[in-house]
Amino acid sequence: MAEHAIAPGEVWLVGAGPGDPELLTRKAERLLQSASIVFYDALVGSGVLGLVPPGVRRVFVGKRAGRHSKDQATINDLLIAAARSGERVVRLKGGDPSIFGRSGEELEALRTAGVEARICPGVTSVSAAAAAAGVSLTQRGLAHSVRYIAGHGSDGSVPKLDWHALADPFTTIAVYMGVAAAPMLSRELIDAGLPADTPVLVAADASLPSQRLLHTRLDLLPIAVRSIAMDAPTLILIGYTVESPTGPSVATKAINGADRPLLKCRE
Amino acid sequence: MAEHAIAPGEVWLVGAGPGDPELLTRKAERLLQSASIVFYDALVGSGVLGLVPPGVRRVFVGKRAGRHSKDQATINDLLIAAARSGERVVRLKGGDPSIFGRSGEELEALRTAGVEARICPGVTSVSAAAAAAGVSLTQRGLAHSVRYIAGHGSDGSVPKLDWHALADPFTTIAVYMGVAAAPMLSRELIDAGLPADTPVLVAADASLPSQRLLHTRLDLLPIAVRSIAMDAPTLILIGYTVESPTGPSVATKAINGADRPLLKCRE
Repeated sequence: MAEHAIAPGEVWLVGAGPGDPELLTRKAERLLQSASIVFYDALVGSGVLGLVPPGVRRVFVGKRAGRHSKDQATINDLLIAAARSGERVVRLKGGDPSIFGRSGEELEALRTAGVEARICPGVTSVSAAAAAAGVSLTQRGLAHSVRYIAGHGSDGSVPKLDWHALADPFTTIAVYMGVAAAPMLSRELIDAGLPADTPVLVAADASLPSQRLLHTRLDLLPIAVRSIAMDAPTLILIGYTVESPTGPSVATKAINGADRPLLKCRE
Repeated sequence: MAEHAIAPGEVWLVGAGPGDPELLTRKAERLLQSASIVFYDALVGSGVLGLVPPGVRRVFVGKRAGRHSKDQATINDLLIAAARSGERVVRLKGGDPSIFGRSGEELEALRTAGVEARICPGVTSVSAAAAAAGVSLTQRGLAHSVRYIAGHGSDGSVPKLDWHALADPFTTIAVYMGVAAAPMLSRELIDAGLPADTPVLVAADASLPSQRLLHTRLDLLPIAVRSIAMDAPTLILIGYTVESPTGPSVATKAINGADRPLLKCRE
């Protein structure tokens, strides 16, 4: 425990995991207990916040789409100011701090300011979605690689991706923040050679009670995402590994003479 | 808690995380407390096993290199037999069950046998290594993608990878089980266009007290891995995101007139 105590003036970037407070690490839980102030954003669920002890200050630093740049600088300044005033600072980040979420900019700002910054890793929403769906993302014979991309850049821009390199049928693709980009993803990956019936899993609020898992296929992805709330954290997993192992349960239909279900929805 | 109790005859594939028992999730800890039997392999550290309550049977099912196929079938049979005899079964897997580690084969065997199988996600060794090194794998301007590959197949075979697709300077590559393949990785990625001085982080025993982090560059990777124990779980991270943010501390030297350190070793 002693080694997880936060020194005054120190900042820990802590992975809050996918949302379910049970998927927080034991270390993250102890760091929350050691903090004097906790900064969190919209991706950190209320269950996780419930683990912050009473009396510890909580500061919401949620960002709005399209206003990222200014807000990120403000967050950096708040973290630095808290550290300099001797607080024991936890910066809670959804998922794992090292995979998307702009930790790099916070780390750089903190180090430039001479503030000690450390990272506690967390469970990614990708791992949570795969667990919920009961699939291995590297199932033997189906995928030898997993690739994480973002559907849009941190400034809202369209990613400059090499679609032909991405369109590898033996790679499971995990797309963060991909709802708005779903039509482009579908079109570009099919144009680059991925079969139209490549299995797709859309996971909203993975690990939370509000979790929705939607099994579909690449050509139907733009339709499928419309049935998922646009404001829920949503992950798109693409590849033969994510085909439902347990079969369809809801919203099953076959169109165009396909001999297998096109949409499978599970709680 | 009730929802995490394991039903008799049920099998949970549980992510044990990278090794540090503090990086186990709260849910995994509770599942261990609910189990009547725990199967584990060589990648699950002694600290994690220390969380298995006294009286719960522990069965080591470690695999030997080159004998994977037969051993995997044996493990599948053991899990099925335990479930059928009414045990509350936990199968502990290093890292996250859905990323490498052959969970897919165990899930398939269990489901074929009619056994209920569920997954509890875990922290990957990739996240642990990035956290230990204090880096973001998707640092803005340096990488828009992270890609996980295995240095050899589950049967010991050399991976059939598209090296040109892999050699994307804006993708951080995480190589599991890559020590033996290090010379090939270095050669193929440089031949495919990655600069010879692309930063590389070699992480052995990430998150454990025995952790070693070695910062090097792509052309020196084959030399660098020789200084890491061959039998320790070792991860190789390749890309501009993994350059040491805190500078060199040990074993710094400059050769060939390079103006930056070639090997940086940190505890």
